[in-house]
Amino acid sequence: MASIMAEEAPAAWLEALSGRCLTEAYGFVSARAAEHFAGHSEGELAETAVPQFVAGGKFLRPMFAYVGWRCGGPESDAALRAAASLELLHCFALAQDDVMDGSPLRRGRPALHVRFARWHTEQGWSGSADRFGESAATLFGDLFLVWSERMLRESGLDPAALARGWPRYDLMRAELAVGQLADLVNDARTLPSWETLLDVLRRKSGNYTVRRPLEFGAALAGCGPDVLAALAEYGGLVGEAFQFRDDLLGVFGDPAVTGKPAGQDLRDRKASSVVVLAAEMADRRQRADLDDLLALPTVDDEAVARWCALIAATGARERLGELIRERAEKAQAVIDPAVFPRHAADSLAVLATKCTERDQ
Amino acid sequence: MASIMAEEAPAAWLEALSGRCLTEAYGFVSARAAEHFAGHSEGELAETAVPQFVAGGKFLRPMFAYVGWRCGGPESDAALRAAASLELLHCFALAQDDVMDGSPLRRGRPALHVRFARWHTEQGWSGSADRFGESAATLFGDLFLVWSERMLRESGLDPAALARGWPRYDLMRAELAVGQLADLVNDARTLPSWETLLDVLRRKSGNYTVRRPLEFGAALAGCGPDVLAALAEYGGLVGEAFQFRDDLLGVFGDPAVTGKPAGQDLRDRKASSVVVLAAEMADRRQRADLDDLLALPTVDDEAVARWCALIAATGARERLGELIRERAEKAQAVIDPAVFPRHAADSLAVLATKCTERDQ
Repeated sequence: MASIMAEEAPAAWLEALSGRCLTEAYGFVSARAAEHFAGHSEGELAETAVPQFVAGGKFLRPMFAYVGWRCGGPESDAALRAAASLELLHCFALAQDDVMDGSPLRRGRPALHVRFARWHTEQGWSGSADRFGESAATLFGDLFLVWSERMLRESGLDPAALARGWPRYDLMRAELAVGQLADLVNDARTLPSWETLLDVLRRKSGNYTVRRPLEFGAALAGCGPDVLAALAEYGGLVGEAFQFRDDLLGVFGDPAVTGKPAGQDLRDRKASSVVVLAAEMADRRQRADLDDLLALPTVDDEAVARWCALIAATGARERLGELIRERAEKAQAVIDPAVFPRHAADSLAVLATKCTERDQ
Repeated sequence: MASIMAEEAPAAWLEALSGRCLTEAYGFVSARAAEHFAGHSEGELAETAVPQFVAGGKFLRPMFAYVGWRCGGPESDAALRAAASLELLHCFALAQDDVMDGSPLRRGRPALHVRFARWHTEQGWSGSADRFGESAATLFGDLFLVWSERMLRESGLDPAALARGWPRYDLMRAELAVGQLADLVNDARTLPSWETLLDVLRRKSGNYTVRRPLEFGAALAGCGPDVLAALAEYGGLVGEAFQFRDDLLGVFGDPAVTGKPAGQDLRDRKASSVVVLAAEMADRRQRADLDDLLALPTVDDEAVARWCALIAATGARERLGELIRERAEKAQAVIDPAVFPRHAADSLAVLATKCTERDQ
């Protein structure tokens, strides 16, 4: 791995890292798709759509995992593959979550189930194209779940390192499914309290995006309790801030940036952080207006506009921005230069910014 | 494992084996459900419905895997746990297949997604109960998939044995998803040829139920190429016969035995072995009648009765019964007493009968 030097500027190093993780994950999935689908009618679909789906990712979780590894381990192709396996776990979650949430778009392009449904129609087959699309996306989700574990097991890390990683990996997989289940029963019409919401966040996205990947990588490298504790704290803070930003984008985000219709979270009645915070900060009259919006049978464009204005008027939008900044700053302070290698501390600083800055 | 003696009558030994696999799988799943769901609103559901779902199984695949192990290995609790992990893989497949196929019943009781949908209604939650049921069943399917792999990894088998098992295990998991995908595009309105159908069977149920579990168990035990080749042949034959019997039950089975409405496969327009064979054996007039049935917009009770009579009239029902018996006999002949330990050969003979006898 001569081209990835710790001496490079951290941002450039991270970008190269993301590219290498993509190459590994794309290569692994392409090989599996060719192995299982060559010569079958579904092969054409599997061998193009599935690796493309992998390539569309930002590889955040592999980056966190590899930076976690670099808190105690040397540059290593095996560790890079182990880190990249987390992107396949993420692909599993995206493919199936989009089916469950009925999301037509992913990263501004048709979601996997929509693509498969269109393919079914193009083939001129009988039966429901939508049903086929959902089932096929679920099955490819299953394959991503299997392939992730296999990519990790076959990464080339030695058995002792893998043995340290499995409990973290298992926890992450279980939290992902359990968190998605909790999301299914999350409905804005029965708004949770701010504290309950933070608990759900910690169980799902917060841990999943930052903390667990960092801990996983550091565990693989055999890092000690001090490093693990600091990474857990950093990860909890950055993960929460990342989720808050995502929730702001889900209400106020520009469709050209998010790849989703404006106010999508409001249309879905998602009890997201900004929605819950607005309810807590609302005065009596604003709360009555919010209750009216929550009771609407469908949330149309006009209702989205009213709801957005109301959230802003409560001060929740601004307050959430402050909470994001506070968490990003606190996270940086957790990384003690006396405990962490310089390059790891620098990478963590870049990643904290990347995950919380406004225009991403 | 003092109570499981090779000297016991093979049928009694197999029954005890099935019970022990159930105990292991049930215990593992109960512990995982308690670990992940204690104190959450979904916990009540997860901690009862999910282990009950495991307990409803016949544990055929674990039995084949353990008999495969006993072709070269000693009695072993670790191998028993590794074998039992295949039942969790099976639970994954059943939970998600029932969602994809829209099957309301499983083993004569409400399918998992139906149970979860009812629970959603009982809670008085807003949103679609059906959608929740399907999503929750898919997620518990995912957890079964994860738990199966974890149960195998944590079975206590030594690393060398596990290393021999992983490739077989991975193949089984991939074939399962790929086979289900092939099933989604299987539609009786475009009847495949008998040869194409056999190819699909070999890719899916045939391999999955008998051959792969046997090979997996034998690989864990380090069996040599002679044993593996014979088990592959036995497994191919018994697996195909098992599927043929299942297909006969899907058309002619007594609802009280199958736990499904009469002629369910015809209502689903499944291009099953008996349907395809009937089309191949039909004379010109019978074929025209079959084409009329295939073209019906919906298959009602009267159409099921006509279709059943027509299949019997072509001779396909009787012929398939002969093919089942031929395969069962050929399978027994493959197990050379000079190559296989006596108890393994005896168990394989009992299992071949169990999987192919008419009234099961």
